[in-house]
Amino acid sequence: MRIGLIGYGGVGKALIKLITEKSPALKAQGVNLEVIYIMGSKKGLYNPQGINCAQLLAASKDGQSITIEDTDENREITPEFMLQNKDIDLLVELTSTNKETGEPARSYILKALENKIHVVTGNKGPIVHSYRELAQAAKENGVCLGIGCTCGGALPSVNGGTIEMAGSEVYSIEGVLNGTTNYILKEMEDTGCTYGTALEKAKACGIAEANPSFDVDGWDTAFKLLILTNVVMKQDKKLSDIQIEGITGLTPENIQTARAEGKRYKLIGRTMREGETLQMVVRPEKLDAEHLLYHVDGKNKAVRYESDTLGELTLIGGASGTTAAAASILRDIISICSR
Amino acid sequence: MRIGLIGYGGVGKALIKLITEKSPALKAQGVNLEVIYIMGSKKGLYNPQGINCAQLLAASKDGQSITIEDTDENREITPEFMLQNKDIDLLVELTSTNKETGEPARSYILKALENKIHVVTGNKGPIVHSYRELAQAAKENGVCLGIGCTCGGALPSVNGGTIEMAGSEVYSIEGVLNGTTNYILKEMEDTGCTYGTALEKAKACGIAEANPSFDVDGWDTAFKLLILTNVVMKQDKKLSDIQIEGITGLTPENIQTARAEGKRYKLIGRTMREGETLQMVVRPEKLDAEHLLYHVDGKNKAVRYESDTLGELTLIGGASGTTAAAASILRDIISICSR
Repeated sequence: MRIGLIGYGGVGKALIKLITEKSPALKAQGVNLEVIYIMGSKKGLYNPQGINCAQLLAASKDGQSITIEDTDENREITPEFMLQNKDIDLLVELTSTNKETGEPARSYILKALENKIHVVTGNKGPIVHSYRELAQAAKENGVCLGIGCTCGGALPSVNGGTIEMAGSEVYSIEGVLNGTTNYILKEMEDTGCTYGTALEKAKACGIAEANPSFDVDGWDTAFKLLILTNVVMKQDKKLSDIQIEGITGLTPENIQTARAEGKRYKLIGRTMREGETLQMVVRPEKLDAEHLLYHVDGKNKAVRYESDTLGELTLIGGASGTTAAAASILRDIISICSR
Repeated sequence: MRIGLIGYGGVGKALIKLITEKSPALKAQGVNLEVIYIMGSKKGLYNPQGINCAQLLAASKDGQSITIEDTDENREITPEFMLQNKDIDLLVELTSTNKETGEPARSYILKALENKIHVVTGNKGPIVHSYRELAQAAKENGVCLGIGCTCGGALPSVNGGTIEMAGSEVYSIEGVLNGTTNYILKEMEDTGCTYGTALEKAKACGIAEANPSFDVDGWDTAFKLLILTNVVMKQDKKLSDIQIEGITGLTPENIQTARAEGKRYKLIGRTMREGETLQMVVRPEKLDAEHLLYHVDGKNKAVRYESDTLGELTLIGGASGTTAAAASILRDIISICSR
């Protein structure tokens, strides 16, 4: 399987490391991966005989980023160049998320699929904005579109609702889908601190971003809920179909009152059938200890499906960090290789 | 996909009902299933143009078993006849479990695989005794062996450790894998009754069998743990490698003392790496509320994996009953059709 990688940030680098380290075990399973393109935001590498990833990694000093330099200085290694060459079997798309339009990732993915190239992406943007179009292109061209990483990384939320619920009708999706808010709420619960103090601690630990709005205002959860709803329940919903409320309005009193009642606030994303329509909502909810999502601790995420013939299924887990996200990309790659 | 079914008990009948009811939805997904053989313990049906399953089901009065009669009285429809004809793509094997040798199911499955016929089974016997041999035969012949139903039915425990952990190294498996014992322990906890009283209630509800030894002495859990260990951790262990203790020795005092400590007894099956060796054990353990398996209530089952790169994953769920078991067979069939 000849792979081209666009996007060489934390997850991209972790993926190259993982492919290099796991290569012998993967070969033993019949999975042969050869990376022939690696593209960062400015420069790219191309070796049709396979990039020596071990050497590339060794060239990186601890804590330093790996510089990508193509050996042939006259050519410019771009996504367009790669997609014109058509010499890869699988594109790994890990560029930064464009939340408004999903571009340019959407165009890269679409072009690859139209050229009968499998795609695995960790990028929510194109999947939130164009899942139907991209899935249709994959189907028409007989190739696969792997999106497991876009909804919780290592937590197999997409597979959980598709492969593991195959043949049943899923009529509700419910999840604790965002790690940052789960951490902040736990911190407020354990220490009695304010939202602001918990947020600062999350920033200091590298859990919350400098601009935390996407997480704490519920957008990240909404993006994931939208993807799961469209994929698992075969819908074509938009973000505007979701009623979204974040956690910024929760006071220490709210949290401690809940605690005194034996309850916990969790930022829940939920899609439920109500008659002929679907209700989609993201909001903080007080859960009691009988609810499995009550027990999703700070470092984990979870999703719960209810179905007609396979009953209910709750998946809890999913390590965070770039290695786990890269491992979820690798899981999708292996799944495609095994078809 | 032309299907032959051996074993027309509760799960077999539920599967035929499910395939009939779900047929339009499956066709829309590109999954076309045609059942051409159905074999009960004494008689069989064969129609190379596809058995009219709706008619077969309609012929069954409520509460009555469906009588299978082949239209041509001169031929005898047997597994041997079917496997000689070689006109199916997939065998569904649902005969009674032979715990000692796995036969004759093992031979049927092996013969089918050698004839390049996919197999889906819900039968623990052949998988406990001959998984390596059967998996090897499937691999050599380029076909699939679906065994999801053998380890908890609707709970996707096998897929959870294989597909969902692909590319990582699983270093521990832990589960509440048996519904009957989970029900009995819950009953003892809730009512303070003895093991014997709880067992009688479980029998009256149809949860425990007339001879409950296989469940309550830990064998069912051990069978499932063995299958998961061999499949997920790529081992070739035997039942004799597992230290097995059932729940019959637990007193109401044990249960209530645990309860007073905020703990619960669960019958746990666990495989863990200890240095170069694997420790495999089935025994009742007191879990505290921090442990996710503490929260697996009477009707559910659960399994938890720990891995190097994908972190931990706990799957909780899996409705019980023949429809859910049949739905897990259908899940494996769809997975094979989608390859």
